[in-house]
Amino acid sequence: MNVVVNTGLLPRGFLAAGISSGIKKSQKKDLGLLFSPLPGVAAAFFTANTVQAAPLLVCREHLKKGPIHAVVVNSGNANCMTGERGIRDAVATAQAVGEILGLEGHQVLVSSTGIIGRPLPLEKILSNVLPLARALSVDGFSHMARAIMTTDTFPKEAAAICRVGGRKVVISGIAKGAGMLAPCLKSATMLAYIATDVAISQALLKEALKSAIDDSFNAITIDACMSTNDTVAALANAAAGNKRIEARGKDFSVYCKALKEVCVALSKMIIADAEGATKFITIDIRGAGGADEAERLAFSVANSNLFKCAMFGSDPNWGRIAAALGSVPSHLDWKKLDISMNRKPVFRKGKPVPVRDNALLKGKDICVVIDLHQGKFSKRIYTSDLSYGYVRINADYN
Amino acid sequence: MNVVVNTGLLPRGFLAAGISSGIKKSQKKDLGLLFSPLPGVAAAFFTANTVQAAPLLVCREHLKKGPIHAVVVNSGNANCMTGERGIRDAVATAQAVGEILGLEGHQVLVSSTGIIGRPLPLEKILSNVLPLARALSVDGFSHMARAIMTTDTFPKEAAAICRVGGRKVVISGIAKGAGMLAPCLKSATMLAYIATDVAISQALLKEALKSAIDDSFNAITIDACMSTNDTVAALANAAAGNKRIEARGKDFSVYCKALKEVCVALSKMIIADAEGATKFITIDIRGAGGADEAERLAFSVANSNLFKCAMFGSDPNWGRIAAALGSVPSHLDWKKLDISMNRKPVFRKGKPVPVRDNALLKGKDICVVIDLHQGKFSKRIYTSDLSYGYVRINADYN
Repeated sequence: MNVVVNTGLLPRGFLAAGISSGIKKSQKKDLGLLFSPLPGVAAAFFTANTVQAAPLLVCREHLKKGPIHAVVVNSGNANCMTGERGIRDAVATAQAVGEILGLEGHQVLVSSTGIIGRPLPLEKILSNVLPLARALSVDGFSHMARAIMTTDTFPKEAAAICRVGGRKVVISGIAKGAGMLAPCLKSATMLAYIATDVAISQALLKEALKSAIDDSFNAITIDACMSTNDTVAALANAAAGNKRIEARGKDFSVYCKALKEVCVALSKMIIADAEGATKFITIDIRGAGGADEAERLAFSVANSNLFKCAMFGSDPNWGRIAAALGSVPSHLDWKKLDISMNRKPVFRKGKPVPVRDNALLKGKDICVVIDLHQGKFSKRIYTSDLSYGYVRINADYN
Repeated sequence: MNVVVNTGLLPRGFLAAGISSGIKKSQKKDLGLLFSPLPGVAAAFFTANTVQAAPLLVCREHLKKGPIHAVVVNSGNANCMTGERGIRDAVATAQAVGEILGLEGHQVLVSSTGIIGRPLPLEKILSNVLPLARALSVDGFSHMARAIMTTDTFPKEAAAICRVGGRKVVISGIAKGAGMLAPCLKSATMLAYIATDVAISQALLKEALKSAIDDSFNAITIDACMSTNDTVAALANAAAGNKRIEARGKDFSVYCKALKEVCVALSKMIIADAEGATKFITIDIRGAGGADEAERLAFSVANSNLFKCAMFGSDPNWGRIAAALGSVPSHLDWKKLDISMNRKPVFRKGKPVPVRDNALLKGKDICVVIDLHQGKFSKRIYTSDLSYGYVRINADYN
């Protein structure tokens, strides 16, 4: 099984499109559509933020009602904190797409991303639903990946092919990220859509997606800011013709692994394209006393502004790692603690190790390994540095 | 009762000093001393970080043993993550100061602030204890305030005079802040020392200090990064000659109020001097369902990098306030929510209110009032913006 990125490859039976509807002043693409004429199963996870954008509320209702055939998404406006009007606008968008594609409105998921608190420019969307449907094509996923971008600087696509019950099964994903991005543990972060031609039960698709998210979209943080619009949705249309996965077993394991690889690849692209980022940072916690503890320690370091600034400055300031580790409850005993950066020990068994290599952290990739020597739990997460660029982008966002 | 700032005023019976010992390469002041020849009572609170600097461990032991007469503090080195040697160095510092002043080592508190993980340059301290003691004077608190500075740009002093039982009681405080500064709720943040000539029981001094901290040092955040060295210590030497405060009552209330005013004044100076800060931000949560909820919501907004960047850009982006409010558990109902900035409503009863004043947030002071209309609990905290300056200072800190 290989993960390939930026191929535009869609699984059989899926079509996609991305066009400009004028929501973005820049006239860049801002309206995307994914469509499977075949019925299938869908699974989705949403932000745990108590402020939920209107399309998320609408999606939750649609997911209850039966097969999902399409996802329509706009960028440039989050349709969040927009009151009853926001709900009506999200429903109207799904309805309009459904009419063009011969579907019920509730068979369409709807997403938005962009600025919070401004009414959705519904007319621009409704007047562009027909051109959007006309643009549907088998290589349209790349266009949709562009249409969901906000402060992203490149589109994010990843695909994997695995063999399930003797059949080739394709998993294709797109995502967007860039900022207001932090995990919320029981749901996913940012926007990501997975199209797959596997035949699978809805329950197992959901389980596979949940498991994939835990090590991918829920294992990244840019700025510790949880969004109101985060959505990860997977549509499976069974076009691969594999014997339907109805139970855990070898087929399910193979599929889970492939799905996780796609989600991890997309997550890494999100971190590589974090707002203002100059570093791609991997944090490995090892030897923790529990899974929660490992995760808590990893995110405490990853979300420390002081640590992130030090990384921006290529400064192996492990004291800030220690302070961040200590700021959350844990079984940390600094006399047993090991910290290494880019494979060089900087702190070992309670004692600093002088760093003699000035260029240790000069490259783009930084790997921090923290071993507590307390237990057998580990956690790997990905994050970015805190740079002038992040401040610049977010001091004037409109 | 008036709070006065930067007077250098010390209560009767106290002496202080601040000199350069060469720990800071800049040759700026880096060694401070506060001394009361009279016996008295002391109360202190320390960081909740599980990684505790060596002087904190030593102070905890000294506080158990009886009257504290002096505080010695160095800047330029945190003496944290320095192993057994760090403990020995802290004890040796207290011992050396005690010998010069005719005290037992355990009658001296010791503090350090600066870079983590480097051995304390003990020789520099020991060879400067005599000059330090010789520099003790009644107007030396201002020099000590300078000696505890790290990235601070100005020294922080505040004093208040109140009448307790017909006597004038003086409360003088100094503090340092600047970065790695976030509240830790059950303890205090940064370094602050209070000298007061009140006669009071140890238990009530501790209670008064705890209460003052809750609305001052524990109500500020610069970067959500909890330090390993935070210490707030108060020494009361009874020189005012008031009838000793032994019980709650009018005298205690008056004293508590004055002490809180001094702590709030110092806290506000810390925020005004936050690393890279261009804004002084007050966040008022009102109408929350509980005290914990009010505090959680206030800090969620104050610690949001996106909110802080928007404030740096003078951008009244209340959507980021909403997202931050939603990222923690609460009874928030956005249909009841009111948000105002600098007294102008920006969101009222679930609906955005257009901001027509481009200069609304252009000044240095920003006040955000968030009313949940859910209950009767409120919380006021102070924070700063996130600027290029913060990133610059922390990308290269040595």
